[in-house]
Amino acid sequence: MLKKIVYQGVPGSFSEEAAIKYFGAKTERISVQYFEEVFVEVTEGNGEFGVLPLANSLTGGVYEVLDLINVYNLYIVGEVYLPIKHHLLGIPGASIEQITEVYSHPQGFQQCSRFLTSFSQWMKIPYFNTAISAQYIKEQASPNKACIASERAAEIYGLQVLKPSIQNNNHNYTRFIIIGKEILESDNNDKVSIVYSLPHKAGSLFQSLSIFSVHDLNLLRLESRPIPDRPWEFYFYVDFTGNLLADRTRFALELLKEKTTYFKLLGCYKSAAID
Amino acid sequence: MLKKIVYQGVPGSFSEEAAIKYFGAKTERISVQYFEEVFVEVTEGNGEFGVLPLANSLTGGVYEVLDLINVYNLYIVGEVYLPIKHHLLGIPGASIEQITEVYSHPQGFQQCSRFLTSFSQWMKIPYFNTAISAQYIKEQASPNKACIASERAAEIYGLQVLKPSIQNNNHNYTRFIIIGKEILESDNNDKVSIVYSLPHKAGSLFQSLSIFSVHDLNLLRLESRPIPDRPWEFYFYVDFTGNLLADRTRFALELLKEKTTYFKLLGCYKSAAID
Repeated sequence: MLKKIVYQGVPGSFSEEAAIKYFGAKTERISVQYFEEVFVEVTEGNGEFGVLPLANSLTGGVYEVLDLINVYNLYIVGEVYLPIKHHLLGIPGASIEQITEVYSHPQGFQQCSRFLTSFSQWMKIPYFNTAISAQYIKEQASPNKACIASERAAEIYGLQVLKPSIQNNNHNYTRFIIIGKEILESDNNDKVSIVYSLPHKAGSLFQSLSIFSVHDLNLLRLESRPIPDRPWEFYFYVDFTGNLLADRTRFALELLKEKTTYFKLLGCYKSAAID
Repeated sequence: MLKKIVYQGVPGSFSEEAAIKYFGAKTERISVQYFEEVFVEVTEGNGEFGVLPLANSLTGGVYEVLDLINVYNLYIVGEVYLPIKHHLLGIPGASIEQITEVYSHPQGFQQCSRFLTSFSQWMKIPYFNTAISAQYIKEQASPNKACIASERAAEIYGLQVLKPSIQNNNHNYTRFIIIGKEILESDNNDKVSIVYSLPHKAGSLFQSLSIFSVHDLNLLRLESRPIPDRPWEFYFYVDFTGNLLADRTRFALELLKEKTTYFKLLGCYKSAAID
């Protein structure tokens, strides 16, 4: 039986590409409209795993997803990095000169802003995501409408690449996480993700980080998010090198729990390479 | 002569309210359309100070502004906290029952999502900011159109409050910074803002933070942002208690500079209270 994988978007979205990169093409892929639905579908068992963008190398964290993984009782079981390449797509036979309107996700516009400054007369219309904008261009079948989306979206929706690789920056990667109902314990795991909050007193963040240092666990990422109802207090999202099967990792987490006012283990998994 | 203060938005925006709260009503206020224009106008001397939102207690950092203060050679010279209260506004004589379309900044919708779920039939149309949406409602003069904006926007544009305080959360504050061309040295300053990046090696973040701890300087805020062209390396934005006139602060910063691959002093100023 094929693995059921849930992602946000439509076929041709970067999330679908990430799902294929991590699990291979032979899966049953379930697309949903909102990030939160990915969590709901996996929680309810309608999908075995979910695939979600967590951060982009240029624009930073996907804060909605960061907030959601703290709320749902699911675990990060893997990660995958996807290079983000944007293309200007139109219907077959269209040319750049005919374009008057361009559709994309707001981040698509932002990440191609240098290319777009040469075409300031184009109306830029924000859309739910890059792949849905490709689907819309296909449906509209107008040579005046273009979208900014991936090569895969061009293939799926039968669109023509009017201009390839229009992104500002070639170091544009998105880190996707794979979420599931249980932590998959393995000797190969080398990365731990946690979230915690701290007593509102001087030095508490430093003290919490010293626990990693003392145990020779390398801090890979630190991100803070506001705690609703507690103005200017924060959840700290930390990734560090470790494996829950190793004593050193478990001891460090035990110590950390004593210092925190809130602690949640988000996952333990094998780190991915950027390629 | 009146002080010239630049802010992003239009009269009635939260940025204008922050400018009035910090400088008083007797200033010449210059409104611009984009955050970056605030930096440009102050850099070119067309305004003496700029007012910009840097973080919200619920939604987190205003990342575009964080990125811009690292690029421009201006300094943070002050800060002010503004409570964010959203109201549903319509033209005089309109009633909630007539509304079919509501306009606001996407964050306005997000921050009033609980109220809006009771009116799922309303079309929600994202707009540049809350005050411009109020201006638009005034111009359209239709009893079917409403907006989500501040009480000050209602006064300025002659709109009626159809439903007051519809925000999800009453702990909704935005921290605004005041930027200027020079650091204003004063014995009253008690907060320092800096940004730095670190060598890509284990323990470097912890080591940098230990400098604050050793000098008894309290870490108030730590935020990371990606560095363009260097995937998964970060700028760390740090606020801490200190004054550049104090030896301890200066010594700590000298030590820190030796440990960092990039260092920029963003400002030294008097911290504000949340009220």
